[in-house]
Amino acid sequence: MAKTAAVIVIGNEVLSGKTRDENAQYLIGRLRELGVELCRIHIVPDELQAIGDAVRGTYRKFDHVFCSGGIGPTHDDITVEAVALALGVPVTRSQALVALIEAHYRDRNGDGSLPPEAYRLAEIPEGARLISHAGIWYPAIAFEELYLLPGVPMLFRRQFDALADRFRDAPFHLRQLFLSVGEVPIAAALDAVVARNPEVSIGSYPRFDPESDYRVKLTVESREAAAVERALADLKGALPAGSVLREG
Amino acid sequence: MAKTAAVIVIGNEVLSGKTRDENAQYLIGRLRELGVELCRIHIVPDELQAIGDAVRGTYRKFDHVFCSGGIGPTHDDITVEAVALALGVPVTRSQALVALIEAHYRDRNGDGSLPPEAYRLAEIPEGARLISHAGIWYPAIAFEELYLLPGVPMLFRRQFDALADRFRDAPFHLRQLFLSVGEVPIAAALDAVVARNPEVSIGSYPRFDPESDYRVKLTVESREAAAVERALADLKGALPAGSVLREG
Repeated sequence: MAKTAAVIVIGNEVLSGKTRDENAQYLIGRLRELGVELCRIHIVPDELQAIGDAVRGTYRKFDHVFCSGGIGPTHDDITVEAVALALGVPVTRSQALVALIEAHYRDRNGDGSLPPEAYRLAEIPEGARLISHAGIWYPAIAFEELYLLPGVPMLFRRQFDALADRFRDAPFHLRQLFLSVGEVPIAAALDAVVARNPEVSIGSYPRFDPESDYRVKLTVESREAAAVERALADLKGALPAGSVLREG
Repeated sequence: MAKTAAVIVIGNEVLSGKTRDENAQYLIGRLRELGVELCRIHIVPDELQAIGDAVRGTYRKFDHVFCSGGIGPTHDDITVEAVALALGVPVTRSQALVALIEAHYRDRNGDGSLPPEAYRLAEIPEGARLISHAGIWYPAIAFEELYLLPGVPMLFRRQFDALADRFRDAPFHLRQLFLSVGEVPIAAALDAVVARNPEVSIGSYPRFDPESDYRVKLTVESREAAAVERALADLKGALPAGSVLREG
């Protein structure tokens, strides 16, 4: 079975347009390269209920769940609390994180005293594990296959890239046909080809803008290259004569 | 009460990276301008269960729900069926849509006969209403405050823009502070200001890249301009002396 994933972006700043989402967009590309099927993206505000709903709707329903944002020391950083609530576990202080935080802020401020809010970064859902990487002082927090990653895009990418190899699966194969006709005259042929080729996924994407040199793009996709080629041949035979402008 | 909204983007092509989402991104900006608070974005595949979950999680929970995609005559256009299932109503054929479809395709093909698949575009959830606009042959389909809009960005924008005035609410007011210090030394002050100013929403957004000329951006937001100014003054008084680089 192909591996599946969901992404939860936590942040009022994305929903209110103060910041453009970069992290879900990044994972769309990276998960695709890795051969992981991305099945859901949820963008939710910094609210316990909203984060909890998204976690309950994805945790153990997909092979990997990636959360972005809401990790930090301020009042709007409630991801750990919300995830723990949704998972039904308490929040606990990680002594390993306490040690990392004290080392990190000592390094930066040159003094041993820390405001108590710094220790908010040491809180994790009980039972979570920490995954550390060279060059990134704060580890990824993982609860089974649910990963809590920072919202700041630079840090998010570094953390994800350090984890990425563990998610790698068989690659996708994709072929495309560009057509000179619209969707109505091909719909019956498409129905038949879809029914005969259950092992591939077929998409149909119309264009209506006059600049486009085609009217419909068809995509045929699978992890099995041979199945894609079979379905593509079937499709070319079933479509109206002369309707295929080019393949891609 | 401020009006709220959710957006459901339906399309394998976005999740698999074949197409970059433009419609949720467009609504982030437009809803903001209109004074509507966007509370959820769900991006889901062309699957009955996934679409249904997103509809059940948003319908009547937010004032407006906007669905993008999966409207059309081909096998992967299942939004109407999925929405009807989630709402617990049957799918019905709209005679008004039948008339529009026959007029539209006659105009384009110059002949009265239509393949039966064209009539798939006439199917709507029972009880839905059609909202027509000059210059757009296919109407928006609305079930109470849930709107079914096309996925093709050009058509999506035209439909939304034609509807937009009915969603207008009081505008948001936003002020920003750019700080020279990180989140740990300001977290306690922020907690206190947040507690004293429940009528505003306060966000804290750190930067870690060396190119940034600030370390934290604070945002203060409300529909009441006076509340924003009060909270901003409170915040400036509570933050460490000299930490505010500039206001925006």
